[in-house]
Amino acid sequence: MSPIQEQVSAVVLGAFNSPLSLESAAMPEPGPGALVAHVDLAGVCGTDVHLLHGHLPIPLPIVLGHEGVGRVWSLGEGVNTDFSGNPLREGDAIAWSSNIPCGRCHWCVVAGQRTLCETRKVYGVNQRFNEFPRLSGAWAEAIYLQPGSAVFRLPDGLTSEEVIALGCAGPTAVHGVIEVAGITAGDTVVVQGSGPVGIAPAMYAHLAGASRVIIVGGPLGRLQLAREIGVGDVHIDIFEIPDAGERVRLVLDATPGRRGADVVLECAGVPEAVAEGWEMARRGGTFLALGQYTDRGTVPLNLHLITRKQLRVVGSWGFAEKHYLGHIQALPGLAARFDLPRLISRYNVADANIALSDMGSGRVMKPVFDLNSQ
Amino acid sequence: MSPIQEQVSAVVLGAFNSPLSLESAAMPEPGPGALVAHVDLAGVCGTDVHLLHGHLPIPLPIVLGHEGVGRVWSLGEGVNTDFSGNPLREGDAIAWSSNIPCGRCHWCVVAGQRTLCETRKVYGVNQRFNEFPRLSGAWAEAIYLQPGSAVFRLPDGLTSEEVIALGCAGPTAVHGVIEVAGITAGDTVVVQGSGPVGIAPAMYAHLAGASRVIIVGGPLGRLQLAREIGVGDVHIDIFEIPDAGERVRLVLDATPGRRGADVVLECAGVPEAVAEGWEMARRGGTFLALGQYTDRGTVPLNLHLITRKQLRVVGSWGFAEKHYLGHIQALPGLAARFDLPRLISRYNVADANIALSDMGSGRVMKPVFDLNSQ
Amino acid sequence: MSPIQEQVSAVVLGAFNSPLSLESAAMPEPGPGALVAHVDLAGVCGTDVHLLHGHLPIPLPIVLGHEGVGRVWSLGEGVNTDFSGNPLREGDAIAWSSNIPCGRCHWCVVAGQRTLCETRKVYGVNQRFNEFPRLSGAWAEAIYLQPGSAVFRLPDGLTSEEVIALGCAGPTAVHGVIEVAGITAGDTVVVQGSGPVGIAPAMYAHLAGASRVIIVGGPLGRLQLAREIGVGDVHIDIFEIPDAGERVRLVLDATPGRRGADVVLECAGVPEAVAEGWEMARRGGTFLALGQYTDRGTVPLNLHLITRKQLRVVGSWGFAEKHYLGHIQALPGLAARFDLPRLISRYNVADANIALSDMGSGRVMKPVFDLNSQ
Amino acid sequence: MSPIQEQVSAVVLGAFNSPLSLESAAMPEPGPGALVAHVDLAGVCGTDVHLLHGHLPIPLPIVLGHEGVGRVWSLGEGVNTDFSGNPLREGDAIAWSSNIPCGRCHWCVVAGQRTLCETRKVYGVNQRFNEFPRLSGAWAEAIYLQPGSAVFRLPDGLTSEEVIALGCAGPTAVHGVIEVAGITAGDTVVVQGSGPVGIAPAMYAHLAGASRVIIVGGPLGRLQLAREIGVGDVHIDIFEIPDAGERVRLVLDATPGRRGADVVLECAGVPEAVAEGWEMARRGGTFLALGQYTDRGTVPLNLHLITRKQLRVVGSWGFAEKHYLGHIQALPGLAARFDLPRLISRYNVADANIALSDMGSGRVMKPVFDLNSQ
Repeated sequence: MSPIQEQVSAVVLGAFNSPLSLESAAMPEPGPGALVAHVDLAGVCGTDVHLLHGHLPIPLPIVLGHEGVGRVWSLGEGVNTDFSGNPLREGDAIAWSSNIPCGRCHWCVVAGQRTLCETRKVYGVNQRFNEFPRLSGAWAEAIYLQPGSAVFRLPDGLTSEEVIALGCAGPTAVHGVIEVAGITAGDTVVVQGSGPVGIAPAMYAHLAGASRVIIVGGPLGRLQLAREIGVGDVHIDIFEIPDAGERVRLVLDATPGRRGADVVLECAGVPEAVAEGWEMARRGGTFLALGQYTDRGTVPLNLHLITRKQLRVVGSWGFAEKHYLGHIQALPGLAARFDLPRLISRYNVADANIALSDMGSGRVMKPVFDLNSQ
Repeated sequence: MSPIQEQVSAVVLGAFNSPLSLESAAMPEPGPGALVAHVDLAGVCGTDVHLLHGHLPIPLPIVLGHEGVGRVWSLGEGVNTDFSGNPLREGDAIAWSSNIPCGRCHWCVVAGQRTLCETRKVYGVNQRFNEFPRLSGAWAEAIYLQPGSAVFRLPDGLTSEEVIALGCAGPTAVHGVIEVAGITAGDTVVVQGSGPVGIAPAMYAHLAGASRVIIVGGPLGRLQLAREIGVGDVHIDIFEIPDAGERVRLVLDATPGRRGADVVLECAGVPEAVAEGWEMARRGGTFLALGQYTDRGTVPLNLHLITRKQLRVVGSWGFAEKHYLGHIQALPGLAARFDLPRLISRYNVADANIALSDMGSGRVMKPVFDLNSQ
Repeated sequence: MSPIQEQVSAVVLGAFNSPLSLESAAMPEPGPGALVAHVDLAGVCGTDVHLLHGHLPIPLPIVLGHEGVGRVWSLGEGVNTDFSGNPLREGDAIAWSSNIPCGRCHWCVVAGQRTLCETRKVYGVNQRFNEFPRLSGAWAEAIYLQPGSAVFRLPDGLTSEEVIALGCAGPTAVHGVIEVAGITAGDTVVVQGSGPVGIAPAMYAHLAGASRVIIVGGPLGRLQLAREIGVGDVHIDIFEIPDAGERVRLVLDATPGRRGADVVLECAGVPEAVAEGWEMARRGGTFLALGQYTDRGTVPLNLHLITRKQLRVVGSWGFAEKHYLGHIQALPGLAARFDLPRLISRYNVADANIALSDMGSGRVMKPVFDLNSQ
Repeated sequence: MSPIQEQVSAVVLGAFNSPLSLESAAMPEPGPGALVAHVDLAGVCGTDVHLLHGHLPIPLPIVLGHEGVGRVWSLGEGVNTDFSGNPLREGDAIAWSSNIPCGRCHWCVVAGQRTLCETRKVYGVNQRFNEFPRLSGAWAEAIYLQPGSAVFRLPDGLTSEEVIALGCAGPTAVHGVIEVAGITAGDTVVVQGSGPVGIAPAMYAHLAGASRVIIVGGPLGRLQLAREIGVGDVHIDIFEIPDAGERVRLVLDATPGRRGADVVLECAGVPEAVAEGWEMARRGGTFLALGQYTDRGTVPLNLHLITRKQLRVVGSWGFAEKHYLGHIQALPGLAARFDLPRLISRYNVADANIALSDMGSGRVMKPVFDLNSQ
């Protein structure tokens, strides 16, 4: 586009457990079916902390970042609409699903479970920095969105902050809470966990008409933030009430007839939360394992509970295009109801290491890099 | 009816872990809405062994027996049809559901889950021998079927042996396998366990169009009996292959693309079977906990599997009237396909202690008392 | 209770198409399992207009009224809790489900569809005035609530006006919209009809997280009332736009990608609305026939649409106890969101004929009799 | 492969309502991702009669035939497994799904309804003969199977006749009967229609454990063939019993409690069958519109039935890869149970016009061309 090719900065992970570095790359031209976008805001997710520590087998070096919102810089040949068919032009504000399922395997075609695709590409997770097109993570001033990406023009009136606030927890909640667990209007819902993957499911439980949302989490700061923006009707602090049995009693007290919750959403990521959650569910109720994203080994569980209570225990893994679309469509409603930007803490991209550290410690809810607004 | 009141024999449990005794009681006259039946055949179930040993808090003394088939001796006032509306007359061959949900509680009315009713009456389990109407178990020459009982006239052509052969495992399978787990025609199904509660679910999996039924159980005699009557396509003997990992490999080998089974039916009652079953299920598959009827404590389980594989783990507890009806309606089809009477070993009612002992040891598949055919 | 037996007034239908009369009856004492309540407010429903005109085969004479809210006057023996198990005392504010399914028939026990029970008792519809207990309709100063009635103590903070505002349309919507049709958060929903049975489903669609609710109805006054209290995002006036094809175009314009609505709720009661509604639904969408409560004959329909669009067309008939309970539990949330009392027009019970006439003409949304507040 | 390029014959439709012609084309070499197969047997479907008469907007000239079974002649670069991942070699017996959804549109990716894809390629329906690769229909000695085709190596022991016997009605039934309508073991099922699209659904109803399958169709020859191979338990001849009301009575007589069928499968393609089918379904039952594939206009229908009976009316359109796979997996079971080759009438490819005429008149069940076995 410009005679002198633009250079953009990117946060690169070169080695596990080492500091991230800020590197430079040439702004790429989009090939057919692709587009290149400037990134405005990029989110930091708990998974990024795991990536830094080498808990997952990813290629290096890599530009991190699977949560982003930005503006179209250049459209490749043949690209003139977004994934929903809306016209797309340079400068349009967009967001994109972080993963591209293959669309051809058993899981994509036969099972219809694109979240289970084993060869999907994931921005910020499995695309190398030292190979074309290099800029495949959101922690950079620009990102190359490959053919097949689910890119969405943002609905009018929605701000970048509102879109990035829930990060990947938003579409993950659409998949787990709305599609897999299924909230029926009037349900009493327990959410175990109060990080982003607890807050987003709790918001969706409200949106889906839950009559009562009980959040069991901590630390206190996160619960207070949730309470202040109207997420959750009852908040139980696991640090204040360290006894699981006592927490179960409190939850039962908050459900009709002390029968337990219709739906329990496990968003804690701690295996120990499971047995507690099964006790909190009513007979015939549903328990969603949403948070057990990483393998943290076994815990003692009593399956007799499943039989006797006729529980339904379901699992949900990540999200696919349709869930990302669902989240984009739900955002105006969520933004009208909850002060989403309150969840964000802004960082300069040069402070990426600090942002990751703050995320790891739970000091903030959602660190966000401010990339192109200066 | 007769001027001299008939006396009938009944097998009574007077104290836990003590021999059963054969006692006598007067043949009762049915009150309004009730009926009295002669019992022809009565089944012995694994639960009866638990009852003998005091594993469940039941009232004593009690006439045991929750599985029975017989003939109407006398109809109480207002009783002229069976539960399905078919005309009912003295002498008609009948069977009956062993439990009577209250029909008024939250679980019966609101949840629509009559299996969860907390105050249901259960023949042979929670009705005392020393209170009216005394004869409330099937291990007797006659049984008093109270108002509200789901009594069914047997379809023409069905023999008593065919009805008693699966015992309560039949309606339990209708509930768990057909209603809760749900087999889709073409599914690959694993059944863990080869006792009556393994055989009945396996038969129902065949009936529902499973493309392959893999039975993982033992001992060899039970597997051979299953094979001989055409139940199961693949049989894995847990005594021959004691390594769970090896069994999982064999199951995967027997599933399309080694992806695992669409549905795993846990019918073993052993908590250790659960982790193995989760490994046998395909991603997106279903695991039914049907066998964990008694509380045998915790085992180590990894919930990460539920999240990553997007498993659906469901539980099913006993059965209600509709499942018993479903079983009666399915029996002609099952009887045409499988030689049901092969499952039975007949005992004289005087040998009740031997029958219970043989059931406990797994020496026979289904002990049955022959009560009125002499 | 009192030495001189209280007399209460009741609105009685003595003959079809004749004026209602105000008659007097002795205040009854509740028998075991029953209770007697003072009625505070009673609603007029479109069905009452049909009853007046003899469109349905009901017994005469009868106290009309199947929608009511009141206070406990006297509890019969054994009654000390409401249907949910909450303690119940004289003076407590209550509401009750208008029908009592038999609890014993095929539909109640086997099918688990208590709305299909053929022998259920319905207050204000099939209980005679000239037989015990006479006071079986809500258009009276008192009502005798028989054993088996689902009576609910009102949640704290809920007013009588808020409870009566939606009348039977509330639980009908819980059954049809939430249970049968099933709204998924994010759905685009069309509601055909803007009477009470249109407004209540539209409210429930909002509650269940619909991203957009499009009301197609009239006359203008009803649409304006809906708009003023925040029900519906788009309002299409069938009198302003009499062409069905044009209305379909407007609905498509209001749906993502012009693909049509995810769910169409037919609440018009006019057979002609059906073909129009099928055109408004997206491929793979759901159409609920909720309004075709009375048999108004056939209309031309093209089933090819069902096949080609893979539509799901479902029907929902009335409601049962669990839906009434669901409505009571949802009311605090609905009341917080919508100004429910705005729907009400109060009438003196002596003006019952005027109220019915105003309901028939659609001049008001929900006529309500004020019975005990003077 | 061979120095002198092979020539193959193909049945070509050059103009609507004109005789088909036998034309010659060069055997193509498969490009990357494609394969070329010799066709052994190709089926004639009722849709082909519609295509001949120009009822559907297809491009001309075209090689007809969307049902085929054959052997791999040549594999294109990168093709070494079938759609299920089984190794694929030249000479292997194969069958293939007739359509290729785009895999990228809203219906494929978001809705997960690949049958609704608007740009899918269909062999024998929308691929021109005068464009590369020319051989895109099964009524030819060879077919060019494009990249993206769902090709399946036949299970061992399955014959070509068994695979072609049900033609596209097989996977259509998997979609409609198994996935959309859903048969529960024990269901009473009515099938309206006794052509191939009636027989295949009836077989699948048996496979899925229907306790009784009632076929309402004709002419007599088709019903007798069905009866002879064990399809259907009750057969009602619409020519012998021309009164719809009488047919409804007979169906009710054949259902438990005269309540009607649990599931009615409309496979007649006649709009008039719909009202009759709704009467045959029990309250709370399911009606599948499978046969209304072509638009034959409106018929009078009464939606009050849907509301009052709480019917579920669903539609199913064609099939996608997963349904074709499901059919291939079910075929060994179907072939073991029913004498599938009895459905076939063989024709020489030179007699294509006669075959189409016989299909149109219903004189035969399934005309099949014998292409390479001479």
